[in-house]
Amino acid sequence: MARDPSMSLLEPALAEAASFVEGALDTLLPKPAGPESRLMEAMRYAALGGGKRLRGFLVLQAGRLFGVDRRGLARVAAAVECMHAYSLVHDDLPAMDDDDTRRGKPSTHKAFDEATAILAGDALLTLSFGLLASPEAHGDPFVRCELVARLAHVSGHAGMVGGQMMDIAFEGGAPGLPEITRLQRMKTAALITFCCEAGAIMGKASATMRNALVTYGQDLGLAFQIADDLLDAEGNADEMGKAARKDDARGKRTVVSVMGAERARAQASALSQQAIRHLDLFDEKADLLRAAAGFAIARRA
Amino acid sequence: MARDPSMSLLEPALAEAASFVEGALDTLLPKPAGPESRLMEAMRYAALGGGKRLRGFLVLQAGRLFGVDRRGLARVAAAVECMHAYSLVHDDLPAMDDDDTRRGKPSTHKAFDEATAILAGDALLTLSFGLLASPEAHGDPFVRCELVARLAHVSGHAGMVGGQMMDIAFEGGAPGLPEITRLQRMKTAALITFCCEAGAIMGKASATMRNALVTYGQDLGLAFQIADDLLDAEGNADEMGKAARKDDARGKRTVVSVMGAERARAQASALSQQAIRHLDLFDEKADLLRAAAGFAIARRA
Repeated sequence: MARDPSMSLLEPALAEAASFVEGALDTLLPKPAGPESRLMEAMRYAALGGGKRLRGFLVLQAGRLFGVDRRGLARVAAAVECMHAYSLVHDDLPAMDDDDTRRGKPSTHKAFDEATAILAGDALLTLSFGLLASPEAHGDPFVRCELVARLAHVSGHAGMVGGQMMDIAFEGGAPGLPEITRLQRMKTAALITFCCEAGAIMGKASATMRNALVTYGQDLGLAFQIADDLLDAEGNADEMGKAARKDDARGKRTVVSVMGAERARAQASALSQQAIRHLDLFDEKADLLRAAAGFAIARRA
Repeated sequence: MARDPSMSLLEPALAEAASFVEGALDTLLPKPAGPESRLMEAMRYAALGGGKRLRGFLVLQAGRLFGVDRRGLARVAAAVECMHAYSLVHDDLPAMDDDDTRRGKPSTHKAFDEATAILAGDALLTLSFGLLASPEAHGDPFVRCELVARLAHVSGHAGMVGGQMMDIAFEGGAPGLPEITRLQRMKTAALITFCCEAGAIMGKASATMRNALVTYGQDLGLAFQIADDLLDAEGNADEMGKAARKDDARGKRTVVSVMGAERARAQASALSQQAIRHLDLFDEKADLLRAAAGFAIARRA
């Protein structure tokens, strides 16, 4: 696909956001102390030093549209990254996807042990909500409650956890495109959507603007997942920092295996363009979000 | 120990609260549906139909002191019971305490499988916060945020999860009484304390009254844990609905193994009486809480 000119602005902005979110996480994650220090070490191992921080970036950019205070956004971005990190730690467990590597290093249960990984995931999940409920996240308690309620919705049984359960339930089966799409909406797109919506909630955006960001996030999330599946089908382990072709090896059906790579790529591109159109009511302040929709499908890892 | 006359009032009150909380949980837990229905089945299996609901009872009774609306209390009690249920599901996992039975039935990973148990725990934990953040929990968003923040604190790395990590870290070691007490404060007493504090938060109690309930909860929680360790050391599996003498088999040091059963019993009794004294500023409305402090150490299972 043609490289969007705004992509050249995106890369430094992503890098800046990643370092900003990393700094916030470093401050907000507990420091190892006491006989339970292994827990904090594992939390930090799982949450720090890796990933593109796309989710944190989306929180920052969506909040910027409404002039939201950057310290509050940092905290909410950190909360989302803790939630994402926990989901990776638990998904990698032997009883789940049994992945030994993640972001090019041993997954948490390999670097520590299974019990510590389960507990570190639990503690990161719990910390997410603690971060959102604290007055430093936003001055208005109504806003904080809405953040907590939405995050609980998109990450629990009706969202991320439900999606992971569905993923397991479909193993060895033959889910169709509607089932796979619903799975991906819950497992991946829901949290990405929350990131975009969070900025609107914090900025007390109009229902129209909030809805524009929600639909942007939904399409972006699906496009992102298809791109991930394409990487898995075609990429190699070095580029991905995790084992490649795992879906195929497990007989896991994805949009790519059902539609074929070419149609899946076209579908991701259509979703990305649709995501960008949802942002039509915003001015050039939303250009980085527009570019992110291109990035989501153009990335190589 | 002498049977307190108010104990005869406690048993029906506990039974009534258990059935009320059970009803609330049944309504608030998601119904099984879709390809992910196994998740909801496991959540319901883990959270419904068992336990004394002491935590839910404490929420209801503490809230009653301040005339808090019972529907809101039901939701908060359900949230606490979801949190407690998740902690049992994860603690029972093979990588953790590896317990096959719980409340006289197969533990969740035995009745389902490990992956489902991990996910059901994650979803119950997440649901707890969703329940607290919803307007049905309390009309004032500031109160809801405080509930979320406090629950995150007592159940995360500085509370329940940290306590479980410490428990693992101490295995095979020789922690002294201060270490064991800190562990029990975090692992057990913190959530019990939250139950009592939640009623005060919801009732917008004065700092003095809130603090009285917090200190009551702390002493009650420790007394409860010592009573639990006494049951483990002396009880049998039938009475407890789970394997007995596990601490001993694992070489786990408890207040009982360090002090001996007799001194531990005296310590539990002293803590229980101290808990009751913290309630001196309340009238007879707090009699059931006083009786609960007696129950905590007198119970046989």
